[in-house]
Amino acid sequence: MEISDIKPGTYLEIKTDDATYTGVLMPHPSLAEKDHLILKLDNGYNIGIEESKIQKIKKLQKKETLEKFPIQKVPKNSNLPSIVLFGCGGTIASRVDYETGGVKSAMSPEEILFTVPELKDIANIKDAKLLFSDFSQDLTPRHWKKMAKEVAFILNQDVEGTVLMHGTDTMHFSSAALSFMLKNLSKPVVLTGAQRSSDRGSSDAAQNLICSSYLAANSDLGEVVICMHASSSDDFCVAHRGTKVRKMHTSRRDAFKSINEKPLLKVSPKGKFEKISDYRTRGNDEVIANTDFEEKIALVKSYPGSPTEIIDFLVDKKYKGIVVEATGLGHVPMGELSWFDSIKRAIEDGIAVVLAPQTLYGRLNLYVYEPQRKLKEIGVIDVEDMLPEVAYVKLGCVLAKKENPEEVVQEMRTNWAGEITQCSKHDFKPEFD
Amino acid sequence: MEISDIKPGTYLEIKTDDATYTGVLMPHPSLAEKDHLILKLDNGYNIGIEESKIQKIKKLQKKETLEKFPIQKVPKNSNLPSIVLFGCGGTIASRVDYETGGVKSAMSPEEILFTVPELKDIANIKDAKLLFSDFSQDLTPRHWKKMAKEVAFILNQDVEGTVLMHGTDTMHFSSAALSFMLKNLSKPVVLTGAQRSSDRGSSDAAQNLICSSYLAANSDLGEVVICMHASSSDDFCVAHRGTKVRKMHTSRRDAFKSINEKPLLKVSPKGKFEKISDYRTRGNDEVIANTDFEEKIALVKSYPGSPTEIIDFLVDKKYKGIVVEATGLGHVPMGELSWFDSIKRAIEDGIAVVLAPQTLYGRLNLYVYEPQRKLKEIGVIDVEDMLPEVAYVKLGCVLAKKENPEEVVQEMRTNWAGEITQCSKHDFKPEFD
Repeated sequence: MEISDIKPGTYLEIKTDDATYTGVLMPHPSLAEKDHLILKLDNGYNIGIEESKIQKIKKLQKKETLEKFPIQKVPKNSNLPSIVLFGCGGTIASRVDYETGGVKSAMSPEEILFTVPELKDIANIKDAKLLFSDFSQDLTPRHWKKMAKEVAFILNQDVEGTVLMHGTDTMHFSSAALSFMLKNLSKPVVLTGAQRSSDRGSSDAAQNLICSSYLAANSDLGEVVICMHASSSDDFCVAHRGTKVRKMHTSRRDAFKSINEKPLLKVSPKGKFEKISDYRTRGNDEVIANTDFEEKIALVKSYPGSPTEIIDFLVDKKYKGIVVEATGLGHVPMGELSWFDSIKRAIEDGIAVVLAPQTLYGRLNLYVYEPQRKLKEIGVIDVEDMLPEVAYVKLGCVLAKKENPEEVVQEMRTNWAGEITQCSKHDFKPEFD
Repeated sequence: MEISDIKPGTYLEIKTDDATYTGVLMPHPSLAEKDHLILKLDNGYNIGIEESKIQKIKKLQKKETLEKFPIQKVPKNSNLPSIVLFGCGGTIASRVDYETGGVKSAMSPEEILFTVPELKDIANIKDAKLLFSDFSQDLTPRHWKKMAKEVAFILNQDVEGTVLMHGTDTMHFSSAALSFMLKNLSKPVVLTGAQRSSDRGSSDAAQNLICSSYLAANSDLGEVVICMHASSSDDFCVAHRGTKVRKMHTSRRDAFKSINEKPLLKVSPKGKFEKISDYRTRGNDEVIANTDFEEKIALVKSYPGSPTEIIDFLVDKKYKGIVVEATGLGHVPMGELSWFDSIKRAIEDGIAVVLAPQTLYGRLNLYVYEPQRKLKEIGVIDVEDMLPEVAYVKLGCVLAKKENPEEVVQEMRTNWAGEITQCSKHDFKPEFD
């Protein structure tokens, strides 16, 4: 019997060189894994089996519990700290439905436990709520507002913390948005995701969700963090401050890196924490969601030949703010394709123009070279070592509250949630050496 | 006598806790070093002196040789390999003129040797030519063309290689442009710069220029490389492939990092090379500069809330190509603020739309998620692990030569100068762990 002839959803016994497995055949989630099949074992775990190692395949009678989407009863355990899980789309919050081959959001507590049965020994999952099920590249500020409101509401109930399962593409935008929108934050808000879907043998979903649940349930964090793999092996996760983190790799499990500072905590899948940096700790404040956001803003980049007419276009279109990913210490073209006049006009029209480092690592300094001092003089806002993406999110929050240019400058350059690393040293050591 | 009362350019004897120095007082190059003064010693070297350590300052009679811009005679040494230095602006190719306090381009062989006297023992500096003296944030494709033409002309003469002294902000754009514009490259083309100006005690200019000169004179490289500090200490430099390198820090000396591959060579300031990766080696081909470049192209980024009207604007303005810094594995918004229709219209209008990874590290894969397959179907070009900046430069070169969409796809996805790392492994190990 050829494996390619068997329909996903079939209950099989597979004998390989090493062992014999029984479980349900899952669909191939990607072309990259053509030479593996994925079997969902009876205990809920997925296993990847190399096709070349298969000796024999036998079709079994379909087990009764598998005729529907299988569930595992959640034992309520009031001895464990309570947490709430939010599904916000992405790879982690979904799993392939082996009956249909389609993607299904696994979001009831029962369905989550079917995917990651370890959770029942970590926390009392008080609720699991699907907020939306979009890919994270499709999210907009509207989604950030929804998350902020729901999280604030839940944190003011009798729970220890919350975990948001989120697509990885723009998770660092969402973590920045939650960091800025949640005032008086007093409990852990943990965003996590998966670089490989939970139906792949190599999935990072389970460990990320386990470590994140420990953080939400037991840590002394009072901040928004992203909790993901610390390395490419399944040893531990790290919690990155929500405003100092960026997805730095398309596919690695440790794609998320803290930029210009160290992560906050190391978390083992056994629930051990190791503090790395200082952070805001738990408190008793009531969390408030301030979700005002000015959406008429843009993020653009300066580079050799970069057309200044894009700035002019944004001014013409009545944008309220522009974040420029500037080169080096905070530079934009001031030569033959100069941006100066366009930026000056933008500022004169009341548009906030913010410079952030396109190098990502390091801090701006507009005082080193003469031409940049001129930018400073006309009112360009430089945001030290704030990441461009974070500056964009923050600018939307600031402009929704402040109109006066001096106040906008003041707010952009004042730390709300650790987005500017205060550091007396001229230099930062990036993580990469 | 207070140091703040003394005019730069004054010849001084300074006694500190440790030693006595004589030399010319240099202007303070930046506010960051307020507590240091810089003295240019008689041997041409600069030294930084902590003001708190100064015991006594004495004004000396101005030495006669110092009344003009001081020079050091270049001893021609035909036993050494010949190289040509090009000045292309930036911090490294200039020095503060201590007579006037202004910045002067130090570009005659004599003036270069005054700044870095070690060069005379490394190579026979056949010529030193100032191509332009712009800050690198002000460069445009016109500057790339000029460099390519001059370098090709010189390399076809009797020289071993060439060094271009260049501003660091956009040096990786220039290295990509030279990589693509120089055909049949058969000798080393080394771009180098300085993160701290040569009048600061902590300048990296001398070591970078020394290592770069060794590379140009003695290495077996037949590629365009960027040669800069390997770490924040003055131990050695590394040569990065011109198409796989990016400025990743605003101020560190080791700001340049190879992305998705290792650097090519380690270079010690004593002239020792240690090969790290494979590269194209020297040959006897005649170098040809093909500098055609389509300037009507743009580099834009997708992010939550990113306005699709920027794509529409570029289409309306008859741009010929757009590089999108996509999220994750090559994603753009396809939800409520979808870019799909705008991209489709762009491609229907004959505009090349290229996706490159905004994570910088890692490789695109448009086959993992369903919505992205639709992008692929309408003709979006994904460029694997090519850096967005490099994709922008390459697109300009490709569109100047090819109009047929199939040919544009073919050229963008075919390696010209190592810009796509061929790798059978699904994963890349970024340099930062």
